[in-house]
Amino acid sequence: MSATDHRFAVNVRPKPGILDPQGRAVEGSLGHLAISGVSDVRVGRRVELTVAAADEAAARAVVEQLASELLSNPLIEAYDVELLGATSSVVSDAVAGVPA
Amino acid sequence: MSATDHRFAVNVRPKPGILDPQGRAVEGSLGHLAISGVSDVRVGRRVELTVAAADEAAARAVVEQLASELLSNPLIEAYDVELLGATSSVVSDAVAGVPA
Repeated sequence: MSATDHRFAVNVRPKPGILDPQGRAVEGSLGHLAISGVSDVRVGRRVELTVAAADEAAARAVVEQLASELLSNPLIEAYDVELLGATSSVVSDAVAGVPA
Repeated sequence: MSATDHRFAVNVRPKPGILDPQGRAVEGSLGHLAISGVSDVRVGRRVELTVAAADEAAARAVVEQLASELLSNPLIEAYDVELLGATSSVVSDAVAGVPA
């Protein structure tokens, strides 16, 4: 089986209007660092992962499923999927496990 | 004072070789979702913020300071800074607080 490794990032952020206590905590710390001019801080997650699939569309479908069912809470969070890169690779059940 | 609002994202991820229990937890959940072909999951944070500054270089300097001193732990985490966009705006101390 020939497959390509696709590296994706899933960016998860609180939806607009949803409370973001971590963002407020960052804003509250700015005074200690003598930083001004910073506003609207939103803290979310970034998940990077590799998917082995025949093509980018198939890999992206896996990431979309993962993002919506496991990595985000659709009630309060939004996400986007970002392709970081692709690396060709050959995966063969016959070869796997046999020393080179 | 004339300033431009710059929107940035700071992506924070565990350094290579650093344990990532959240990433392992995601990988352990893949079987329940009947998803295969996913590997090397790394879970980090994504912080989005707006900086008002005269130009992009000044804004980026603020974000870099914030990222290294507050948003990441340099011992175990790496970060990158991503410019999301810029919006022109005029901020005037004389006008601020006066109803339009």
